[in-house]
Amino acid sequence: MQKTSYSPGTLNYIPFFYVIWADNLLSISEVAVVRRAIKNDPMPTLEDKALLLGWLDRENPPLDNEIKNWKRTISNSGVKLVESEAFPLSTLSQKIVCHYAADCPFNENLKEIEVNLGIQPNHYRHLFEVETIHEGTSHYFDATEIDKILKGNDAMEIDRFRKFLSDPIFNWKIERDKSVFRRKVLEQVQILGNKGYGAIAYPRAYGGKGDMSLYASIFETLMFVDGSLTIKFGVQFGLFGGSIQNLGTKKHHDQYLRNAGSANLLGCFAMTESRHGSNVRGIKTTATYDKASDSLIIHTPGQDDNKVYIGNALHATMASVFAQLIVNGKNEGVHTVLVPIRNNKNEPMPGVTIKDNGYKLGLNGVDNGKIWFDQVKVPRENLLNKYGDIGKDGKYHSDIKNPNKRFFTMLGTLVGGRICVAKGALSGAKMALTIAVKYALKRRQFSDNVKIQEDLIMDYPTHQMRLIPAVAETYVYHISLDRMINTYSDASTDSRKLETHVAGLKALITWFCNDTIQECREACGGKGYMMENRIADLKGDVDIFTTFEGDNTVLMQLAAKGVLSDFKAEYETSGISSVLKLLSSQLGERLSAINPLYTNKVDKDHLYDPKFHKHAFDYRTKRLTYTLAMRIRDYIKKGVPPYQAFLKVQTHLMALGKAYSIELAYTTFTDFIDGMADGKTRFLFQKLAVLYGLHEIKKDASWYLEQGYLGGTKSKAIKQRVERLSSELRPHIEVLVDGFGIPEPCLRLPILD
Amino acid sequence: MQKTSYSPGTLNYIPFFYVIWADNLLSISEVAVVRRAIKNDPMPTLEDKALLLGWLDRENPPLDNEIKNWKRTISNSGVKLVESEAFPLSTLSQKIVCHYAADCPFNENLKEIEVNLGIQPNHYRHLFEVETIHEGTSHYFDATEIDKILKGNDAMEIDRFRKFLSDPIFNWKIERDKSVFRRKVLEQVQILGNKGYGAIAYPRAYGGKGDMSLYASIFETLMFVDGSLTIKFGVQFGLFGGSIQNLGTKKHHDQYLRNAGSANLLGCFAMTESRHGSNVRGIKTTATYDKASDSLIIHTPGQDDNKVYIGNALHATMASVFAQLIVNGKNEGVHTVLVPIRNNKNEPMPGVTIKDNGYKLGLNGVDNGKIWFDQVKVPRENLLNKYGDIGKDGKYHSDIKNPNKRFFTMLGTLVGGRICVAKGALSGAKMALTIAVKYALKRRQFSDNVKIQEDLIMDYPTHQMRLIPAVAETYVYHISLDRMINTYSDASTDSRKLETHVAGLKALITWFCNDTIQECREACGGKGYMMENRIADLKGDVDIFTTFEGDNTVLMQLAAKGVLSDFKAEYETSGISSVLKLLSSQLGERLSAINPLYTNKVDKDHLYDPKFHKHAFDYRTKRLTYTLAMRIRDYIKKGVPPYQAFLKVQTHLMALGKAYSIELAYTTFTDFIDGMADGKTRFLFQKLAVLYGLHEIKKDASWYLEQGYLGGTKSKAIKQRVERLSSELRPHIEVLVDGFGIPEPCLRLPILD
Repeated sequence: MQKTSYSPGTLNYIPFFYVIWADNLLSISEVAVVRRAIKNDPMPTLEDKALLLGWLDRENPPLDNEIKNWKRTISNSGVKLVESEAFPLSTLSQKIVCHYAADCPFNENLKEIEVNLGIQPNHYRHLFEVETIHEGTSHYFDATEIDKILKGNDAMEIDRFRKFLSDPIFNWKIERDKSVFRRKVLEQVQILGNKGYGAIAYPRAYGGKGDMSLYASIFETLMFVDGSLTIKFGVQFGLFGGSIQNLGTKKHHDQYLRNAGSANLLGCFAMTESRHGSNVRGIKTTATYDKASDSLIIHTPGQDDNKVYIGNALHATMASVFAQLIVNGKNEGVHTVLVPIRNNKNEPMPGVTIKDNGYKLGLNGVDNGKIWFDQVKVPRENLLNKYGDIGKDGKYHSDIKNPNKRFFTMLGTLVGGRICVAKGALSGAKMALTIAVKYALKRRQFSDNVKIQEDLIMDYPTHQMRLIPAVAETYVYHISLDRMINTYSDASTDSRKLETHVAGLKALITWFCNDTIQECREACGGKGYMMENRIADLKGDVDIFTTFEGDNTVLMQLAAKGVLSDFKAEYETSGISSVLKLLSSQLGERLSAINPLYTNKVDKDHLYDPKFHKHAFDYRTKRLTYTLAMRIRDYIKKGVPPYQAFLKVQTHLMALGKAYSIELAYTTFTDFIDGMADGKTRFLFQKLAVLYGLHEIKKDASWYLEQGYLGGTKSKAIKQRVERLSSELRPHIEVLVDGFGIPEPCLRLPILD
Repeated sequence: MQKTSYSPGTLNYIPFFYVIWADNLLSISEVAVVRRAIKNDPMPTLEDKALLLGWLDRENPPLDNEIKNWKRTISNSGVKLVESEAFPLSTLSQKIVCHYAADCPFNENLKEIEVNLGIQPNHYRHLFEVETIHEGTSHYFDATEIDKILKGNDAMEIDRFRKFLSDPIFNWKIERDKSVFRRKVLEQVQILGNKGYGAIAYPRAYGGKGDMSLYASIFETLMFVDGSLTIKFGVQFGLFGGSIQNLGTKKHHDQYLRNAGSANLLGCFAMTESRHGSNVRGIKTTATYDKASDSLIIHTPGQDDNKVYIGNALHATMASVFAQLIVNGKNEGVHTVLVPIRNNKNEPMPGVTIKDNGYKLGLNGVDNGKIWFDQVKVPRENLLNKYGDIGKDGKYHSDIKNPNKRFFTMLGTLVGGRICVAKGALSGAKMALTIAVKYALKRRQFSDNVKIQEDLIMDYPTHQMRLIPAVAETYVYHISLDRMINTYSDASTDSRKLETHVAGLKALITWFCNDTIQECREACGGKGYMMENRIADLKGDVDIFTTFEGDNTVLMQLAAKGVLSDFKAEYETSGISSVLKLLSSQLGERLSAINPLYTNKVDKDHLYDPKFHKHAFDYRTKRLTYTLAMRIRDYIKKGVPPYQAFLKVQTHLMALGKAYSIELAYTTFTDFIDGMADGKTRFLFQKLAVLYGLHEIKKDASWYLEQGYLGGTKSKAIKQRVERLSSELRPHIEVLVDGFGIPEPCLRLPILD
C-alpha cells in the first residue's frame, strides 16, 4: 500500500475529476449528473463530499497544481487501464483505490457518471501515463442485433441471399478487359434471374413475389459483391422488366414479364439521348403510327439524337424505347415502345445500329451502348399502353387528358429505381466505411517518444471526424430509404409527394456516398488507391450514381419545386400574396421560440434534444420556402417570365431541396427510433441521431448564424459536441460497421489481412 | 418610329434601370456610379435628369408598374441584343432610342455604367423578351496575353515544349493493360530524357540547366498529356535523380547524374514502407555498416517492412533506399543509400525481391512495386553522404550534430517535388475545367416554352457556381506555386519557412484539384464518365496526389506547427505566456478595426477591397494561432504531455494550417497583381482575386460569424457577391480557360467535337 494525501472516499473520484478538468468537459447539466452521484454515494464522508463538490465549481475550477497532483496519484499507482472492461474508468478507479487503501469495493455510483457523461477510454487514454491494455473495439453493443434491425422485415430472405452470394461465381476480382468482365457479369445476372431473384418485384403470376421492398434489399446487397453486377441487374429486372410491368398492360405482362424476370429475354431501357439527358421531354426519337401497316415506325432523326449510355445494349434482344409518339401527324408526347433490337443470331435487327460506349471510370462490367433507329417498324401492340394507347381505329386515346400530367405519371413509375440507386450507393459507402474503419483499427502510425507501439490511426481526432459522422449518416439514410421503399409499395401513397421525397433523398444520399468513399480512400492512404482493396473500385462505380436516374442538381430543384407546390391550392384560390401570408404566419410561430436565451443555450440536454434539431430543420425549410416565394413573386411582379424567374433563383432552389431532404431523413430516423424497443441499441441509435442532427446543423452554421437562429457561442458548442460525440462513439465504431451486415467473403481483402 | 411616353434623354437609360431594378442590383457605391453618369450626361434635359435620379432612390424604388412599362418599351422596340458587341447594353440602348426617336447618337456615359457595374449580358439576357444574337463567349480579354503571363519567364521554352508534345508518340489513348501502358510510358520518358528535358534541374556540368522553375513547368505541362507519364517522369528525374543531386556529393554526381538525367540509368526512390508511410522516421529498413568488408548491408527486417508503391520499381536498375543507418551498433537515423536492384539482364540482384503493386484507380502506366532486401551488400561509397558520412576509419560523421535537424534537412531537399506535385494536380484541374467549360458552352438543355433553342448549361447559375469560382482559384494557385518554385530556387530562402508554405499549399491545392475534377465530372454528366473524354481519367490519376509526397492531413498539421514555431524564439526566452501575450497584442491591433460599422459594411467598394480580404485572412490566422496556443498551454499546465496535447488539438491544427495557406495564396496573388502592368488583363486578375477572396471568406462564414467578425447582413452580402461575380465572369469564361494554355491536341476529345 502506497501513501496518498487523498482519503479513499475521494480517491475513487480522482480519475473522473482528472478527465473532467483536463478536457474542460462539463456543461451545467453534466455537473448535475456528477453532483447527484456524489450526493447519493454512501462511501465518502461528509468532509470528502464537501471537497468533491468543491471541485465541481465551474466558476472556481481546481488549481492546476491540484490537477497535476491527481495525475501523479494516478500515474504512481501503476494501475493498468483495460479498455475492454464494461466500465473501464470506474474499474480503473477501483484499482487505484486498492493500490492506496485496504478496502476497495466497486463503486456503483461511478458507473452512473461514466455512462451519463459518455466518457470513453479514448477521451482519457492519452491523459494518463498508465499502460493501456488496449483493444480496438468494445463489444458493449451487439452488431448482430443492429444488423437485424437494419434488415427489417426481410431479414430471413436477406440472410438466405447473403449465403447464396458466397458461391464462388460471385467472388470479386479485378477485370480490366471489358468484354471479359461483361461476360462474367452477364452470367451472374442470368444465374440470379434463374434463381428467381430478378422477378421479386413482379406479380406472383409472373414468377415474382410482388415485393418491391425485398427487391430493393437484394439490389443493395449485390453492391457488396460488385457495382457492375448491381447495375446490370437493375437494368434488366428493374428498368427493362419494370417498364413492361409499370407502363405495359396484361398482354405485355403475359408475353414478356416471365422471361424478363428469368433473364431469358434480355432487355434494355432506351430513354437517354446524346442531346437530351435531364430534359426527357425534349427527346427526339419518334414513334410514328403508320395506319396502312398498323405499326409504329421508330426513328432517330439526327445523328446526335441516338440513345446513349444504354445499359445491356450489347447483350439485349429487346429495348423499351422512349419516343415522341406521333399519331395522325400529332405529337402525343413521350411514350414507350418495345422494339426488338437483335435477332436470335444476336445480330442487330435491320435498321438498328448499336455501338459500344467504351470504357468508363467504373462499371466496366456493364455494356453501355449507343443505339440508332432507322425507320424500324414494330407492331402497334408493342406500344406500352397503360397510360396512352392507339385503338384499332388508329386513334390515340388516354385516360389522362393533360399531356403534362400524363408524362409525369409515366415517369413517376420510375421512382422505385431511384430509391434503389440511392440504396446501392449507400451500400458502396457502407463497404468503404467498413474497410476504412477496420483498417484504422489495425493501422498504426506515429507515437509518443516514450511509447514503443505507434498509435492506431482510429484514435486520431482528425480520423474520427473523417469517418464517424459518416457512419451516423449512413444509419440515418439506410432507415430513410427503407421507409421510402415501403411507402412506394403502399398503393395509398400520394405519388407526387413521394416523388419529391425520393428526388431529394436520391441527390442528398448519392452525393454523401461519393464524398464518403473519397474520405475512406484518403483515410486508407496508398492502400485505398489499390484496386485489390475495393475502395478505389467502389469510387469508380458509385461516381455516376450522382448523374444517372436523374442528375442530382436537377433532382434537388425538383424537390424544392415539390415543396413549393404544397402551396398550390392556396396559390390557385388566392394568389401568391396569400401563400406568402400563410408562410409568414407559419414562420412567425417558429420565430416565437427564438429568443436570446434560446440562441445561446449550450447545455447538453438542450443540444442533444431531438426537439431542438427538429425545430432547427423545420425553421430552415420554412424560412427558405418563404424567402424563395418572395423572390419569385418580386421577379414576376416586375414582368420577368416564370421560367426565367426560376432560373434566377436556382441556387436558392438547391438550398431548399437540400434542407428539406435533410429534415425528412432526420425525422424519418427519429420516428423510427420512437418505435424501437427500449434497450442499449435504442440508446445507441439515439446517439447516432444526435450526431447526425448536430453535424447537419454545424454544416449549415453560417446560415443559422446569419438568420440569428444560432448565436456564436451555441454554434461553437455544437462544433465541439460533434467532435465529442464522434469520440464517444469511437470504441463502438467496429460494432457499428459490423452492423451493416456485409457478408464476410466480401471483406476478404488484402488491406484487412 | 413608334410612340413612347419616354423622352429620348430618359429612353436610353431605360434598359439600364430595368436591369438594375429587376435584380435589385445596386449597393450605395454603385448608385453613386449611375448618379455620376447621369449628372455628367449632356443629353437628358434637367427634367429628364430629375426623373432619372428619382428612379435611383433605394428608399423609394420605382413602382412595379413603372418597371413593367420599361420592359414593354424594350420588348416593343423589337431590337436585337448582340452579345458580342463591346458594350452590348449601351448599344442595345442606342438602338432602342433609334427605334423611338429620330436622333440616336451613342451615349458614352452609358458605357461607364456598364463597365463600372460589371453588368454582363447574362445578367439581363433572360430579363428582356428580345431576340439575343448569342455567342458563347466574349473576346474582350485576350487568352494569349493571359497565357503569356502564366508562363512567366519560361515562356519561350514552354512554347517549344508544347510544340514538341504534338509528336504522335505523346497522343493520349486509353490503355487498359498495365504492361502495355507501362511500356508506352517508359518509352515516352526515355525520349524526354534523351532530349534533355529530364536533366533541366541538374547543373550544366551534368547536361542540365540548373533551372528548377523550368523543370516544374515541364512537369506540369506533361500532365496535359498523361498523368502516368508525368509521375514516371517525376520519379525518374525528380525523385531518383533529385536524391542523387541533393543528398549525394560530387562523386555521386560524376558517376550517376548524367545517366539519370538521360534516363539511361533508370532508378527509383524507395522511401515508403508498408507499415510506415507518413512516419518516415519510423521506417524499419536498415543499412548496417560492416567494417570488415567496408560495405553497407541493406536489410528488410520484417515481412511487412518492405518498400511499397515504389514508382519505376519494375523498370529500375538502381534504387535510392531510405534506411536506418547503423554504424558500430549505433542508429544514426534515416539516410539514403544507392542500391543496384537489377543486373544488366534485367534480373533482380541477389537478395532483392520485387513484386508488382498491381492495378490502381489511376496511374496504371506507372510501375509501382514492392521491394524487399535480404542482407544486400553495397560499397560504403553508395551512401549519399552530403549530410552524414562514414569515414574510411569506419566512423560516422555529420556536420549537423542534432539528429532531428539532420533528418529534417535531408527531407527538406524533397520540397521541390512537393511543389511539382501540386503543380501537376493543378494541371489536372485546369484540364478538367477547360473541358467542362467548353462543353457547357455547347451543351444545351431545357428551355422556356416560347424558345425553340434550349439554354446553354453554362448559363445556369448552379453551373456557374460550380465552375467559375474554381477557375478563379486555379489562377490564384498557379501564381502561388510559381512563386514557391522561384523561392525554392533562390538559395537565400529560409528553408523552414518554405517547407511550411509548401506543406500547406500542397495539401490545400491537391484537395482543391480533386474537388474540382469531381465537379467537372458531374458538370459533364454521362460524358464526363467516359474515359475517352479525359476527365474520368484525370480523376483516377489526381486522386492519389492528396496522399503521396506527404499525406494532406499530416501536411496541414505540419503547416500549422510551422506557424507556431514562428514564435519559437519568444517561447524559448520567455515561455508560452509571453507568446500568448504577443499574440494577444497582435490580435488586439486587428480587433480595433472590428466595430459594428465594419461587421455590417456591405458596400461594394468595401467588399471588393483587397484590404478587407487581407484583414479577414490575417485575423483568422492570428486568432486561430492564439486560441491554439491557449489550448495547448492549458493541457500542458494540467500535466498532459505535449505529444498528447497536440493530438487533442488536431482538428484545430488542421483549421490553422488551412487558414494560413489560404492567406498565403491570396497575398501572393495580390502581390503579383500589384506588379502587373496596367490594362484590361490586370483588371481581370483583380476580379479573380476578389472572387477568390470573397469565396474563401464565404466558405468559412460560420467561423467569422461566430467570432463576431462578420454580421449576418454582411455574410449574406458576400454570398450574393460571389454569385454575382461568377455571373459577371461568365462571358469571359472561355477566354479564362484558354488562358491555361493547354495544347490544342490535348483537347481533341469526343466531348468537344
